[in-house]
Amino acid sequence: MAFEFELIATDGRARAGILHTPHGDIPTPCFAPVGTQATVKAVPPRDLTELNASLVLANTYHLHLRPGEDLVQQMGGLHEFMQWNGPILTDSGGFQVFSLTQINKIDDEGVTFRSHIDGSQRRLTPESSMAIQQALGADIIMAFDQCPPPKDRETVEKAVARTHNWAARCREAHPYDDKQALFGIVQGGIFQDLRAQSAEFIQSLDLKGYAIGGLAVGESKAEQYETLDFTLPLMPNNRPRYLMGVGDPDDLCEAITRGIDIFDCVIPTRLARHGAAFTFDGRINMKNARFKDDPNPLILDEAFKSYSQNFSRAYLRHLMIAKELLGYYLLSLNNIAFLITHVQNMRQAIIEGRLAEYTQTFLQRYLGRSQ
Amino acid sequence: MAFEFELIATDGRARAGILHTPHGDIPTPCFAPVGTQATVKAVPPRDLTELNASLVLANTYHLHLRPGEDLVQQMGGLHEFMQWNGPILTDSGGFQVFSLTQINKIDDEGVTFRSHIDGSQRRLTPESSMAIQQALGADIIMAFDQCPPPKDRETVEKAVARTHNWAARCREAHPYDDKQALFGIVQGGIFQDLRAQSAEFIQSLDLKGYAIGGLAVGESKAEQYETLDFTLPLMPNNRPRYLMGVGDPDDLCEAITRGIDIFDCVIPTRLARHGAAFTFDGRINMKNARFKDDPNPLILDEAFKSYSQNFSRAYLRHLMIAKELLGYYLLSLNNIAFLITHVQNMRQAIIEGRLAEYTQTFLQRYLGRSQ
Ligand SMILES: [Zn+2]
Ligand SMILES: [Zn+2]
Repeated sequence: MAFEFELIATDGRARAGILHTPHGDIPTPCFAPVGTQATVKAVPPRDLTELNASLVLANTYHLHLRPGEDLVQQMGGLHEFMQWNGPILTDSGGFQVFSLTQINKIDDEGVTFRSHIDGSQRRLTPESSMAIQQALGADIIMAFDQCPPPKDRETVEKAVARTHNWAARCREAHPYDDKQALFGIVQGGIFQDLRAQSAEFIQSLDLKGYAIGGLAVGESKAEQYETLDFTLPLMPNNRPRYLMGVGDPDDLCEAITRGIDIFDCVIPTRLARHGAAFTFDGRINMKNARFKDDPNPLILDEAFKSYSQNFSRAYLRHLMIAKELLGYYLLSLNNIAFLITHVQNMRQAIIEGRLAEYTQTFLQRYLGRSQ
Repeated sequence: MAFEFELIATDGRARAGILHTPHGDIPTPCFAPVGTQATVKAVPPRDLTELNASLVLANTYHLHLRPGEDLVQQMGGLHEFMQWNGPILTDSGGFQVFSLTQINKIDDEGVTFRSHIDGSQRRLTPESSMAIQQALGADIIMAFDQCPPPKDRETVEKAVARTHNWAARCREAHPYDDKQALFGIVQGGIFQDLRAQSAEFIQSLDLKGYAIGGLAVGESKAEQYETLDFTLPLMPNNRPRYLMGVGDPDDLCEAITRGIDIFDCVIPTRLARHGAAFTFDGRINMKNARFKDDPNPLILDEAFKSYSQNFSRAYLRHLMIAKELLGYYLLSLNNIAFLITHVQNMRQAIIEGRLAEYTQTFLQRYLGRSQ
């Protein structure tokens, strides 16, 4: 059944499940790589399949500006357009409007802003965000929200009220059928009472899933984990829980332990472009001279062998120093494979009731030797 | 037997053959993509295998400067380093020294120049070019030569004399064993008597193969074809003939018809970076607005379907406009697949005795609608 969320196992507050979608099942917890402009940067869709990606995110704001949702719809929708036949989630455009553009006017009706590409004046409202996301045709779409700086109480209060108003209008505007699921977003910054108020209101809309927005945008890690601590118990068990924009390997441990099911983050491809690679022994800078004549593959673990393709660290360093596109591609593959594998490991650990043991071992090794 | 060249069929002056190498057989005629810095730009080795690449070229000049032949040798040689297990050919470094660097001194002994990367002073001689290419470990290596502007007789005469002197020294310096074949290069610009003199001298060294250098560097197409007309009959039938740096689809027709067996060119990946794609209906600029909503794959032919991966022209245009790395990758795949397929088609036509028919049909369609 489309969008049914099955809980398979729990381990403490952590959950392993399956989210059914029209384009396939998503085993949760799940890490989704981001395909901002209808492509995960440098990575062909068939590699995403091989890396066991089960969900890909695309950005409504970027696709609305270029190439436009009408063209994507005309080409058969986002799955057909980008040739990724697995589940897709689009965000609402809200986050990019508030972080990337020059805002001209924001009111309860919507936001008027200038495109970061050509400066043209644009407007997004809850209703237009729904219409754009329907045209794009993702499996899961997000309610239009306002993501404020998490520690300024007055701003957060206003953003929560506006986010609720907009969420209700999104619910109204969306057909809420079996083709596409609408998820709501809980805001409230780092404030417990605002998170509680938001969790309650958003749940009252009876949506297919719930996200926690407004984290990983300026608060400390301790504040992030504490916010998860008091927000997650307020969210329903029978719906998937999505933590937006979080992808640091240690944060994934903390959030999964607290009960998050879905993640997305640009970190694997962004780090790759800067020459950084995830390994179980910590993040490494591939351009570092110590890898100059290192014949080992990027990740030494036997279990990672199928992803490493036998390219040596010496070769990867050469590619990055020489600014070769193949370097960005291979590091992107490595970093996506790493996060997906890490989250899959945690899923298996939850099923086997040994998540605490896994995360402790992982964090010791990953953070202990991190640069 | 390593480096044996088998002639399978002829059609007029055109030849179909097989060149045996320690890393596999090369069916000829053959188009070799160029992996300048030990990577065909943006294209992973496994894709090269899928595209039926049977020979990859790498540049001695670039690899000498970065990462250095010692490192490549330490990592197990070029095949192991770049994870391409098929045949590899390295050029001698001569062409890049004369075209990319600031030359400080050139004499009969060798060339002193400044690195285009860091300005450091370097020196290449026939002997050091051989030593570098032996360390890199390609299957086929090239004699160190001087490639002059093809129409200035006085310069060409001097370059021919120097190229002969250097070729003899390369022959002396190379072990000439079963692991690596040394090819000689015939120079002489567009001058019939100089080409004849060069063809005779280079053959006297009894090498495993012979190249025609100094074309596609400033002469007209008519001059290029005429030079092939009077040079090729002077080259031995029982050795492979390699035309360096030529890759335009129409030039491939003309040169194969005249008896060339091996080609290399950066054109497929260079064009891709500029947004241009080969199709059987001519070269197209992928960013052109007429492809905005074109749902067709890049190449319409049924026979090309396995390469096209169902990405629409509309999507490829979007990727190029949005400067997405996936766009460069997909256009590179297309362009390499196109040239390899085109040359394979000609090989089959030679075997079936219908090369003239193939090239006529191809050129009519390709040039007729070219932009
Ligand atoms: Zn299902
Ligand atoms: Zn053989």
